[in-house]
Formats: sequence, C-alpha cells, structure tokens
Amino acid sequence: MRTLIKNGTIVNADATTRADILIDGEQVALIGSDLDVSADRTIDASDRWVIPGAIDVHTHMELPFGGTFAKDTFETGTRAAAFGGTTTIVDFAVQPRGGSLRQGLDAWMEKAQGKAVIDYGFHMIVSDVRDDVLSEMDQLVDEGITSFKLFTAYPGVFFSDDGAIFRAMQQSATNGGLIMMHAENGLAIDVVAAEDVAAGHTDPYYHGTSRSPVLEGEATNRVIRLAEVAEAPVYIVHMSATDALNELRQARNEGLPAYAETCPQYLFLTLDDLGNGFEGAKFVCSPPLRPAEHAEELWKGLQTGDLQVVSTDHCPFDFHGQKDLGQGDFRKVPNGLPGVEDRVDLLHDGGVVAGRISPNRWVEVIATAPARMFGMPQKGTISVGADADVVIYNPNRTRTISAATHHMDVDYSCYEGREVQGKSETVLSRGRVIVDNDEFLGSPGDGRFLKRQRPNRG
Amino acid sequence: MRTLIKNGTIVNADATTRADILIDGEQVALIGSDLDVSADRTIDASDRWVIPGAIDVHTHMELPFGGTFAKDTFETGTRAAAFGGTTTIVDFAVQPRGGSLRQGLDAWMEKAQGKAVIDYGFHMIVSDVRDDVLSEMDQLVDEGITSFKLFTAYPGVFFSDDGAIFRAMQQSATNGGLIMMHAENGLAIDVVAAEDVAAGHTDPYYHGTSRSPVLEGEATNRVIRLAEVAEAPVYIVHMSATDALNELRQARNEGLPAYAETCPQYLFLTLDDLGNGFEGAKFVCSPPLRPAEHAEELWKGLQTGDLQVVSTDHCPFDFHGQKDLGQGDFRKVPNGLPGVEDRVDLLHDGGVVAGRISPNRWVEVIATAPARMFGMPQKGTISVGADADVVIYNPNRTRTISAATHHMDVDYSCYEGREVQGKSETVLSRGRVIVDNDEFLGSPGDGRFLKRQRPNRG
Amino acid sequence: MRTLIKNGTIVNADATTRADILIDGEQVALIGSDLDVSADRTIDASDRWVIPGAIDVHTHMELPFGGTFAKDTFETGTRAAAFGGTTTIVDFAVQPRGGSLRQGLDAWMEKAQGKAVIDYGFHMIVSDVRDDVLSEMDQLVDEGITSFKLFTAYPGVFFSDDGAIFRAMQQSATNGGLIMMHAENGLAIDVVAAEDVAAGHTDPYYHGTSRSPVLEGEATNRVIRLAEVAEAPVYIVHMSATDALNELRQARNEGLPAYAETCPQYLFLTLDDLGNGFEGAKFVCSPPLRPAEHAEELWKGLQTGDLQVVSTDHCPFDFHGQKDLGQGDFRKVPNGLPGVEDRVDLLHDGGVVAGRISPNRWVEVIATAPARMFGMPQKGTISVGADADVVIYNPNRTRTISAATHHMDVDYSCYEGREVQGKSETVLSRGRVIVDNDEFLGSPGDGRFLKRQRPNRG
Amino acid sequence: MRTLIKNGTIVNADATTRADILIDGEQVALIGSDLDVSADRTIDASDRWVIPGAIDVHTHMELPFGGTFAKDTFETGTRAAAFGGTTTIVDFAVQPRGGSLRQGLDAWMEKAQGKAVIDYGFHMIVSDVRDDVLSEMDQLVDEGITSFKLFTAYPGVFFSDDGAIFRAMQQSATNGGLIMMHAENGLAIDVVAAEDVAAGHTDPYYHGTSRSPVLEGEATNRVIRLAEVAEAPVYIVHMSATDALNELRQARNEGLPAYAETCPQYLFLTLDDLGNGFEGAKFVCSPPLRPAEHAEELWKGLQTGDLQVVSTDHCPFDFHGQKDLGQGDFRKVPNGLPGVEDRVDLLHDGGVVAGRISPNRWVEVIATAPARMFGMPQKGTISVGADADVVIYNPNRTRTISAATHHMDVDYSCYEGREVQGKSETVLSRGRVIVDNDEFLGSPGDGRFLKRQRPNRG
Repeated sequence: MRTLIKNGTIVNADATTRADILIDGEQVALIGSDLDVSADRTIDASDRWVIPGAIDVHTHMELPFGGTFAKDTFETGTRAAAFGGTTTIVDFAVQPRGGSLRQGLDAWMEKAQGKAVIDYGFHMIVSDVRDDVLSEMDQLVDEGITSFKLFTAYPGVFFSDDGAIFRAMQQSATNGGLIMMHAENGLAIDVVAAEDVAAGHTDPYYHGTSRSPVLEGEATNRVIRLAEVAEAPVYIVHMSATDALNELRQARNEGLPAYAETCPQYLFLTLDDLGNGFEGAKFVCSPPLRPAEHAEELWKGLQTGDLQVVSTDHCPFDFHGQKDLGQGDFRKVPNGLPGVEDRVDLLHDGGVVAGRISPNRWVEVIATAPARMFGMPQKGTISVGADADVVIYNPNRTRTISAATHHMDVDYSCYEGREVQGKSETVLSRGRVIVDNDEFLGSPGDGRFLKRQRPNRG
Repeated sequence: MRTLIKNGTIVNADATTRADILIDGEQVALIGSDLDVSADRTIDASDRWVIPGAIDVHTHMELPFGGTFAKDTFETGTRAAAFGGTTTIVDFAVQPRGGSLRQGLDAWMEKAQGKAVIDYGFHMIVSDVRDDVLSEMDQLVDEGITSFKLFTAYPGVFFSDDGAIFRAMQQSATNGGLIMMHAENGLAIDVVAAEDVAAGHTDPYYHGTSRSPVLEGEATNRVIRLAEVAEAPVYIVHMSATDALNELRQARNEGLPAYAETCPQYLFLTLDDLGNGFEGAKFVCSPPLRPAEHAEELWKGLQTGDLQVVSTDHCPFDFHGQKDLGQGDFRKVPNGLPGVEDRVDLLHDGGVVAGRISPNRWVEVIATAPARMFGMPQKGTISVGADADVVIYNPNRTRTISAATHHMDVDYSCYEGREVQGKSETVLSRGRVIVDNDEFLGSPGDGRFLKRQRPNRG
Repeated sequence: MRTLIKNGTIVNADATTRADILIDGEQVALIGSDLDVSADRTIDASDRWVIPGAIDVHTHMELPFGGTFAKDTFETGTRAAAFGGTTTIVDFAVQPRGGSLRQGLDAWMEKAQGKAVIDYGFHMIVSDVRDDVLSEMDQLVDEGITSFKLFTAYPGVFFSDDGAIFRAMQQSATNGGLIMMHAENGLAIDVVAAEDVAAGHTDPYYHGTSRSPVLEGEATNRVIRLAEVAEAPVYIVHMSATDALNELRQARNEGLPAYAETCPQYLFLTLDDLGNGFEGAKFVCSPPLRPAEHAEELWKGLQTGDLQVVSTDHCPFDFHGQKDLGQGDFRKVPNGLPGVEDRVDLLHDGGVVAGRISPNRWVEVIATAPARMFGMPQKGTISVGADADVVIYNPNRTRTISAATHHMDVDYSCYEGREVQGKSETVLSRGRVIVDNDEFLGSPGDGRFLKRQRPNRG
Repeated sequence: MRTLIKNGTIVNADATTRADILIDGEQVALIGSDLDVSADRTIDASDRWVIPGAIDVHTHMELPFGGTFAKDTFETGTRAAAFGGTTTIVDFAVQPRGGSLRQGLDAWMEKAQGKAVIDYGFHMIVSDVRDDVLSEMDQLVDEGITSFKLFTAYPGVFFSDDGAIFRAMQQSATNGGLIMMHAENGLAIDVVAAEDVAAGHTDPYYHGTSRSPVLEGEATNRVIRLAEVAEAPVYIVHMSATDALNELRQARNEGLPAYAETCPQYLFLTLDDLGNGFEGAKFVCSPPLRPAEHAEELWKGLQTGDLQVVSTDHCPFDFHGQKDLGQGDFRKVPNGLPGVEDRVDLLHDGGVVAGRISPNRWVEVIATAPARMFGMPQKGTISVGADADVVIYNPNRTRTISAATHHMDVDYSCYEGREVQGKSETVLSRGRVIVDNDEFLGSPGDGRFLKRQRPNRG
C-alpha cells in the first residue's frame, strides 16, 4: 500500500518545507519536490500543513478512580484521539498496592489489546515501592516501559512518601528510566479539604481553593531536589501553577535535568470555571484550574523551553452518573477531564494563531519533544524512515468544540462552544488513513504496543 | 548536476533518520530509503552523519580594528569556514561614524563580492544613531539586512550611549529587525584598563582582569531592560560570563524576548590562557576569556536553551605583526581570535562526545537556530526544497588542531595541539562539493549574498 | 539648663522601656526609674512615647532646579522639620559644573548658617568628576562631609557617565566615604519624554509613565555592579520601584554592601495622583510615583531590612508660580515634593498603627539607622551621653494633614485631608525645647553644622 | 543590693554610649554619666564593654537521645552558659509520643527547678500532633510556652509528616505562638544513611555526606510554604546550608514572616572536621557540618539580617562513653555538640574582630533579637527597667578554648586549642554577680522560669 501526499507544506519542529511525501507500507519512504511516483492513493494537501501525528504522553483510559472508571476505553479514547490528530498515546498502567508492577502492566495490556486504534505505550504508576518492585523496574525498562510515575498527592491511594520516591529515583538513575511526578503536597491539601467540608464548603469550587498553588510549588521543588540528590532526571506531569514553574526554572538554571509538561486545561481554563455551583464538577481535576495569571506564565514556559511538552491528562467522567458522586462533598468528585481530542487544535489556536509560538514550536511540544523525551524516535517527525503517522492539517478551518460532536465517550466538554481555528482533516497511523473528513476509517486493534527506548533528554 | 548521498544518517535538529539524499542543482530534491536514482555523482556516507551545513552568524572578515585589519579576507575566511563544515556566514558591515549605513554596507558588499566561497549575509554595525540612520534601518531591513549591532563597549570607537541604543531598539520594534548587542560596560572598563597600564600592568593577562564579568552582567541587564521598555527583542552576542547568563535567564523567565549566543572560546579556553607573558596576546578578545567555572555555566545554558546559538566572533590577527602592536600596552592588542574553522568540531567534541548535548541539539545550535533566528529558512536543515548546504560528517575521526594545518590566514591557533573527535569530510554549498577529503574544490565568488528575512524567534 | 522628662515610655530601636530622663545641657545625662532630681523644667510624658529626634538624610533646602529654587529655606524648612519631630537633616550641597566641591560646600554652608533651627549636615553632589575633584573628596571626608551623591538621571544637569561614577566609587573605597546614587536611566527616559511631548502628551501624568520602573531597576543594578567592581559600598536614594528593590535584594543576598532608602511618597502615593490634568504637577518628583503594588513591595523591604532608611527628598515648589512652569510640557515642572514635616507621622500611621512594623523598627528607620549609616553616633537614640534630641510623641492623637496648617513654605500638601494617627507634641534639640504644643520656641541659627563620621554599615 | 558599674562603654543593639549603670535589686535602675550614687558594690568597667547578658534560645540540657542523655544538667549547663556570658536559655521540653504536652513540660520543669543558675524558658517539642494536643498548645501559649518545635527529620523519633506540621502551624496562626522547624528531609536521608552503612561506610564522616545540603534546602522551602498556606510565621532552627538560606532569602523577599537562626558550629567548623576516623564523632550533629563555602554565606545572612539569631543547639555527649555508641555505625552516634559556653566569644572573634559585623549587631544576634523574637522584652538590652542581666566584656583579652578549662560537663571541645579574642569577665543575672574573674558565685536554683510573651517579630 503506497500513499502519496501532494502539494502540502511539511511542518516539522526544525523547519517548514514544501514537498511531497510517499508512504510505502508503514513508513515514510520518500520526500521530494513534485514527486512523480505511482501510489495506491493520492492525497492532495494543497493549502494544508503536513505534520507528524501528535503524541499524547498522558492519558488514563479506563482508569479506576474514586469508585468509578474513567469512561473512555482504549477504543473510544484512541478513536477520539485520532480525530484530534493524535496518533500515539502513552497511558498509565497501575501497580496494585501490595501487588507487582507486572500485575498492573498485564492488566493494562489487556485493556488496550485489540482495542486501541493508534499506537500506545505505557508508563507504570508505582504505588508501592519495595525492594522487589525496584528490581521489577529494571526489567520493565528493558521491555519498553521506560517511565514510572509516583505521587506526592492522594494519600492513601497513590501517595508515596519521600523515602519511597527517592528510592525509585535512585533506581531510575541506574536503569535509565525516567521518574514522572504528580507534585502537590497531598497531606496538607487533605487537611484543608477536610476543614472546608467540615465548614460546609462542599462545592467543587473548594476543590480549587483547597489545593493552593503554593503546595504545588512546594512539591515540585521537593521532587526536583530528591532527584538532584538521587542524581536522576525528573519529569513533572501536568504543571499548572506559576509557583511550580518558578521552581522548575530555578532547577534548570542550575543545570539540573528537570522537565515538565503542562496541559490545555491549565492554558485555557481558570479557577472561575470551578464556580457556578455543582457545574464546576465538570472542571475538577488535580492539580486544579488556577487563576488566569498562571496560564500566562505557562505560555512563557512553553516559549522559552522550560516546559517541553503539552499532554492532556485525559481522564473523562460523565457529568451525570460519575461526577455527581461528589454532590455534597467535592472530595468525592472523580478527578479528571476529557481532553485527548482537543489538544492539537487548542494549542494551534491559542499558540500559533495567537502569535505566541511558531508552527514549528507547536509541532515540537505536541509531537517531537514527547517522542524524544519518551523514547520513540520513530515518531514525532515527518522524515524518511519514520513511522507514517501523518496529519493533514488545515490551519485556516475553524470548528466549534462541543460534546454534541466530539468523539470522546463523555457527556460534556470543558470547551463547549469555543471556536478554534485549525483542524486535522486526514489522519494516518503507520500508513493507514484512519480519519478522513470526519469519518473514522480505522479499526480497533490496529494500534500496537510501543516498546519504548530510554528517554533522550536532548 | 545531480548528487546522490547514499547510506548516511541524517542528523537534523528534530530527528535522526537513515535515508539517502538526492541533490538536484542547488537544492535537496529527494530524500528516500535506498534511493535508486541516477546522479552525476554519488557520495557514500556509510558510517557518516549527514548534517546541514553549519552557519556562523558572527564573523569579521577584513575588519579594520586597532590600526590594522582582521587578516582573513572573505576568500580565505570563507574557505577556512568551508573546511570546518560551515557553509554560511553572517558578517558585520560597519557604518562609518558620521556616514550612512549605506556607505558601510556598500564597502562590505565590495569586500565580499567575488571573494566568498560560501553564502554570506550582513548584519549592520550602527556606529552613529541619527534620525536619518534610523530611517535607513527600515530600508535595510527590506533589503535583507535584518539585524543591527550596537556596543556598550569601546568608547570612542563603536560605543553608543543608552539613549542611542534605546532609539535603535525602538526602531527595530517597528521594522521587525533584531538588535544585537555587545554588552560590556566600556566606560568603567576603560578606567580600570588605564589604571592597570599606569601601574605597569601591561601584559595581555590584564586585558582579562580589567574587564570584570560583573561589567558584562551589568551591561547585559542594561540592554535587556532598554529593550523591554522599547518593546523590542534583543540578542546578546558572544556571551562569556555567568553574570551575563544569569541576567539573560532572569529576563527569559519573565517572558522577555531576549536571546544570546556564546562562542567556542568561552566554552573551551579560560583566563589562564591570557597568562604566560605576551603569549597571552593570542587570546585577547572582548569579552575576555573567563575563569573555568563560567564555561560550565555556558554549557548549562546551551543544554536548557537559554543560549540559542554558538557562533565564533572570528576576527583573526597574526601574532607576529599584528597582535604585537600591543607589546607594552595590552589595550593596543587587536581584539579578536581566529575560530571560523574549528567551531563545528569543537562543539561536537566537547558537546556531543562529552555527553553534554545530543547530536540533534548540536545541529540546532550550529545551524538550525542561527538559520531561524536570522531569517534564513532555506538553511539549517536537511529537507527537501532547502538549499543543498550539506556536510558529510565523520563523528569518529579525530584530528589535531594546529596552525600548521588550518586554513585560516593567521599564524597561530588558539587550540594548538588539541585533539578533537569529529570531522567534516565532504562539504557541499548549494549542491556544489567545495571541500572533499581535505581538498578545496570551490571558487571565490561562488558564495552569494543572502537577502535575509526578518528573524523568526520560534 | 536641666530638663526632666517624667513617666514616659522610651522607644528605642532595640527596646521599649519605662523610665524618666534627665537632660543636662545638650545631652541626656541620666535615665532612671522614678527619677527624683531637680530640674529647671519638667515635662510629663505620661501616656506618651519618648523617641529619639528623627533624622531626615535627604532634603533640598533652597535647591536651584529647573529655573527656580526649592522654596523652603534652611529656616522655614528646618522649622517645619521640627514640628514634624525631625531634629536633624542632612542636605545636599551642589558642586557647580566646572567648579570645585569646596565652592559648592561654601555656598550651602552660607545658606544654612544662622538659619537652621536644628542640626544639619551635608552630603556633596558631585556634578563633575575630575582628578582634582577626586582629591577634594578625600579632604571633605575628613571635614565631616562623608557622603557624595551622583546621578544616572538628568543628562546635562547632574548626570555623570558610568566612568565618572565608577571613579568616584573607587575614591570612596579608599577614603571611607559613601556614594549615594540617584538611579534612573536618564538617557533613555529623555528619549521617551521627548517623544511624549512631541505626541502632545504634555500633562504631568506623562512624567510618571515616561520614567519606567524598569529603567529605575536597570540603573539600580548598574550602580550596584559598578560599586561591586570598585569594591565600594553604595546607597540608593529614594527607591520607588519593585524593579529596583529586586536588584537590591539580589545584591544583598550576594553579600554586597548595598543599601537604600525609600520615601513616604512612594509608600503612600501612587501614579494615579499624577493624573487629574495639571493638578498632577503637585506630585511630580523623580523617580515618579508608581502603581500601588510597588508600595506594597517597599513595605516588605522595610520589614525585612533590605531597605534601611526612610527619608523625604523634601524639595518643595509652590503649585502656583513654580510648578506651573511646566504647563504644556511636563518636563519643565520643577521636580520635587514637600515632605519634611510629615514623614514621622505618616510612617507611624501606615507602619505602626497599620501593623506593618513595630514601634522599635519605626524608630530605627526614621532615626537610628540614618544616624548609624551617615556617621552621627550621637544621634538616633535615647541614651545617656547622646545628644538630647528628643521627641515626646503621642501615638494616639490624630491630626489631619493640610497646607492650611503645615509649616513648610509651600502652597499645597500632597496629603491634603489625610488623617494620620500619631503626633510629635514636644520636640527638643540638644536640650532646648523648640516645639511645644504646636508652638515654635526655637531660633534660627540654633542648629549646628554636623561634622559627620564615616558611615557605620552595621 | 545596689551595684554600680562605672566607666564602661555600654554596647546595645542600637547604640554605643559611655555611661555608668546603677543596678538596684534585680533591675537596672539608673544610667548616667559619672554617676555619683551609693552602692553596695562597685565594678570598674574601664576599657570594658557593658553588654546585655546573652540569650541562647536553643539548648538541650539532659535531653534523652539515642539511648543516652545530653550530659549537661540544668545546673552544669547553665553554669557553663554563665561563664560564657549567657544569662538566659530557652530549652526544649519534649512531648512523649502518645502523651500530652503537659507531661513533657512537667518533666522538664522538674529537671530545671532548683538547678538552673540563670533564667530559663521552654519551647515545646511536639512529637505527636493530635486534636487534644492542638488545644493544649493554646493553653501553653497562655502559660508562657509560646514556641513549638517540630521536625521533618528523625523518622520514628521526632518526625512529623507534612499534614501534622501544617495543622500545628494553623494552630499557631490563631494562638500567636511560633513554630520552630528542624528542616531536613529525614526520610530521604535515612535511605542514604542505610545505603552507606550497608556499603561499609560507617565512619562519622558519612554522617556528614549522607545528609545533603540539598535536603536541608528542600525541607526549609517545604516548611516555609506550609507556613505560607497556614498563614503562620515560621522559624528555622540551626540553619547550616546555603541551600536553606537561599530558600529563606526568597521567602523573605516575598514578604513572608520566615526567620532563622544559625549556630557557631556552622560558622566555624566544616565537613572536614567530621573526618579523621572516629574522631569525627565529636562533631556529629544534625544538620551536619558543611563545606566551608556554606559558612561564608551564613555570615552574609547575619550581615543582611536574613538570619536573625545565633544560638548553640547545645547538646553535649562525652566522646568516651557516649559518642562511642556509634562505633561501627555513624547513625548511632548521639547527635549533638557542646557549645553553650563559647558562642559569645566565638561570635565576637569571628564577627566583630574579623570585621564582619559591628559590636552592635553582635549584641543584636546574641541577645536583643532572641529576646524580641521569643517574647522576653525585659531581656536583651541594657536599659532602665530591664532585668539586670549584664556582662562586663573585655573585647581585647584573648583566651584559648579547651576542654581542660571549660565548664561544660563534657570531655572534649569542638574548638580545642582555638584562640579567641574577647571574654566575659563579670556576669550578673538579675543583679547578682554570678561569675567574676573565672570564679562562679551563683547558686543552683537562682535561675527562674521565664513566662514568655508571644513573639514580637519586629
């Protein structure tokens, strides 16, 4: 199967060029000016950008949380991702407390297999650091699970104490894996949250105010310093607050290998969205949405490179039937937002169209940097020999985001009614067209497990 | 004329891939796996990297300085550049005091025309800010001279006062050009230098100590703040000191469009090199070489992206006959070092081989970022449609740097006897092989003036 | 002449105690509990604080500026100071351009002699740094003029270039004097101001906006760094902006001997006061009033000790007949505000009553620290042997500030109608009661020239 | 009993004056020039300084630790303190885990009563934060126990988790007490220490290297941020590392009420002292001694005021019989150093004589600031009405520190053989001469429990 993409403008992280692309099988085979070759299918990309398929390194399909499950399966979730121009996800397998990493990985492998319509990898959530678990980490790195997530938040659930985190970091320093951290001081937050509920402040808005940005900054500094002593790199997930970014900046100025992602919700939504009574439950995620000035700082971080990646932390719960578990106690609202479908366009609209970042930098933060930092050299670039994960992107077309039209299996959108400029029109995954003009052409099970390499920090 | 490069590993800033390259005329025409096409010439790049020709955005060919001239002409200088894997330079035309920018530009155009063996552009040194000069700046931007350099150093020569600098910055804010700054407090430095000489401290070493890194930090902050008020971006040339880098970091953390380059001499040489009696004259440049700890900080800056570019500030003077003008008074040593030939290999050796930066980041700082930041989108990348400025690079071959073998027209080397790993074996400029196996195959005049676009800050 | 102060609470910088005070002649002779000694006069200080007379180290009596003179003479100005609880001023003698320091000093000595009702010293404004002037600095230090002020602002008037400033700093490093700096980038400011006027923006409000806080921060860093290289301490006068304070904080964190004062106008007034048409001329001073958030930072600086002193920069011009020289061009509004009378109460009200600083810290910033930093060990404390400059202060009494009742010779007040808590009820200067219950009892000429010692930096 | 001190120079924090002092009973009754009054005893203080008795707010008399007890009792320890010019200590009562604050306080009251020769107060170590304990805190504040210490170090012993610390801080925000923090990340440190021992690195030197300064910086930032969210002030005890000081500086720049003390061991001793085999055990304390550059930063902190207090953390263990519990495992060396006797002279020698701080600042950090910050307004100043805790200090006399001559009940000195300039010759506690010319004249039980007020932060 050969596909020829004609007349497009290739936007890579390093350069913008006009050239045609021949895909042969699963890889890009040929890039040339005015390619005159035979193909089974020809796509006219006139007035379009041709970009590498986007990579979302932070999704939670079917995650059990707060007595329910994130609603998107690997099938519905990856299909929605594909519609949004994302052709690779890295999801999180969860070690059961008391159990092994392997158990968790097997469980998540099973969830994904035969379901995913795009390629997928796994990070491993380490819930319970023990000697045997540290040894398992080494094995998993060799099997392509090269990143591990721990939490300073969620005491009693995912929380690890500083000794455990430090030991995992030491292990990663020797096995070449990468520790990812959810950095909020969960112990202090739980005190505030309990006081709020005791005081009758049970609305979702208090979810936001109970989790001070100061406590994200604190935990961010803490895990960076633990990593410094462990002589390991560290990657902060879903950074939301200026306080945290400032700690990251300081660490990077010192030359420490500290990295971070942010997510669209922290760039486009604010603490105010958590208001409006229980409607705010739609916006409950952790860290919470912040006052608007934090978003401006995060944009600066993307501009200067202190932030390397934008992922989604996609973790959708229906407003009706799931989010409402938290009626009367914001602590019981399942934490998480749908987002895997909208990231590429939101970033294009708020980043490129708004003049904050160049098209190349946009490609870098949604595709090239995630590929590099999470060990997927065959992804994140339109280059000969790379996987033919390709998106024909129309930078001029606008669309209105709505739950009525999105493909995520969730009954609301955080961006309902927002018009964005930019749209993925045709999406190829390893050479197969899986989305074309709003039509899904892929198949569950076509996505493959990605055995990832060790991170390349650049 | 078609050239086929087979079996190489293409190292771009965004990705590393294995593919063949067909050059047709002056551009890259085709990139593919196992290309089976006819060509006039085939180059086997097995076990080699194929990288974009490097770009040196800071050279001074034939610069009049201190009563003499930088010794390399556009012919000898660009030939040496080519041997070192550099296929584009941006040199500095100098406005004569009292004269127009145009006069200066014409003079430098004449120096280069018919001489340069690789492509070249010009920045404009603004020596004398006047109303008519500000208007000229707008015209020059339209003619492809899109960057302008001013000095807080060299009172009585290139020095501009803060009001003049500020006005030039305001002008660039409207015309889209970029102000480049030599940032040292020349007025204070001249006091110290005069005191040194009066005290009999006339050796070149005192050149180094008279120019405190604190005064580079000061001037760096000053020009960044002037640019902030003028709402203009600013680019600091030849950053040498931690003090300056810290000011840059602070500015970038605030989201200011502040940028900087450093040079190999600040990464590889130190203040100690200025010792050893008059031998130190070989190492006299401004800002001066610094104690070793500054170099470590500059490497960090390259790693995190706070420094975007490595250029050379190539400005060679013979030790015998030129540098010795400063016998008995270090202030009279012509300021400048030869360097255009060695940058690519030094950075490979000290950056990539030493494990400080990845091959991709190396390509970025020597080629891709300079191309982007100085408005040359057809350069700095191996991509279809881009200029076929291509270097076949052997990352494993070592060579020993020496004046006996280098191609710069200067009687010494700052790196005499240093062994470096990595060598440009074959160099193409817009499709023509100009260096092959230590043989020069190019011709004076083959290099073209580059009409540059406005900077793309990323 | 012996005066006994009974039943008061002595508030010194280090402690608060209840004790009686016997003044014998010009000094405090005895402090004791329930002193039972004979005296010529007994003051009952029940429910009052007894504090050291305040010291204002920044006044400009009869300063020629902008074609007119600051209106208060040494007589009217020091009388107003006394009413406000200030018993010492340090004013600025001005070197005429081309002339000697001595000439300037003699002229100011003459202005003060026979006029001042409280003790006074002089700083020397150095307008013209020359070799002979540097030598004169040494002599003046020995004569009790131990501090020297230079300007990065006011090009063509007081402005010194960085080389001149640096030389003066070097001189102070050897003679033990202290360089005081007006730190704003006057060259850039003048460009902006000229553009404003050219654009028809001639109202006083543009005085404020033309002098960006960024340019105060810049110049502050600049002079601190020049002092660092000169190995001299430096004292920044009238700090108004967060940008400047941040540079000071950074320097002090590095252990540099950098110090600063702020003034009440920067703590209590804001940029908005410069609006309202030409009324804003009442508030024209340099640096200008800033947006309110700067004041909050200055308070923090006073709390942590990064700011050591509050002075007034008293320099009054009548609104009618003087300030109106700037009708139609804000650059011609004489720069300066009346303030010598209100500092003590404003700081008490906004500092102590508002809970920002303790009574002891209040005494420190208005009296003790100025005495120490400017070499007047006999002042700034209620201690046996110290000069009997004593204020009986009623911390509970309120008054309303108004030009109708103030004693400064100027036709308006910047604080018209503001009610403040705290009032100096009885004021003694070297043992003589010079103000009692709103009555002036002193005499012109009673104030003596203070031969100051070298600064004690603590 | 009336004591007259003649001809001395009174050095207070705010001023230096020459005056005589009459003590009547327990307080200073009269200060005057050439006092001609009757007295029971006259002390000639010619050529001497008269300073307020020093205050040590960090001692551990008879502390149970690591299976043994700090060796000085309240009798031997306070006697040694008195010899060294210290007339007040604030020691730490320890809440037993599972028990009440009251239990701990009663136990420590009993240890001190009838033993102490100088006045003493107590902080309370909170080992176990529970609802009832939080209520007890309020009661204790009213009883004069106005400060509470918690630990991020010593897991399993004194360690509190972040939630517990946060709750205690919230409580202090309402009751006006002050939380003191031992800030090191004990959980991570214990991992490193265990690895060291497992690797056979059992010498005391590894105590130092296992406790990275980075982990002190981390914990310092953590507790400052917890306090920020709790809206409470926080006081960091025994700060030893630049990393921690930098976090403190940052917090103070933000206007946060964060404070800290350091100790002489961190100013005068270094990591190297921990070497030399098991001899290093003499220097085992936590935080550990640091490389020399940290001390220089701490001195800067004292100069600028970011550090407010110097205390000792006096906690002595005999080298023979106690320290040697840690033979073969540095973790078992009892943590603590003797120091209560030497602080005043060390600070005089290294601070005043070395030119780093003025005599007034010296008095401030050893006496005036501790009195203010820990609610003892009757102490820390030579003022009428204040307690007659007075030291006749000879700033010119030198002595050699040695275990052979010191009065602490411990068999070694950390400063053995060090010559220091400055000596307390006569020491009065509430009017009684308790040390005179190396003779002890006091009595056990003369020291009284100090009911302290709430902190006055200045």
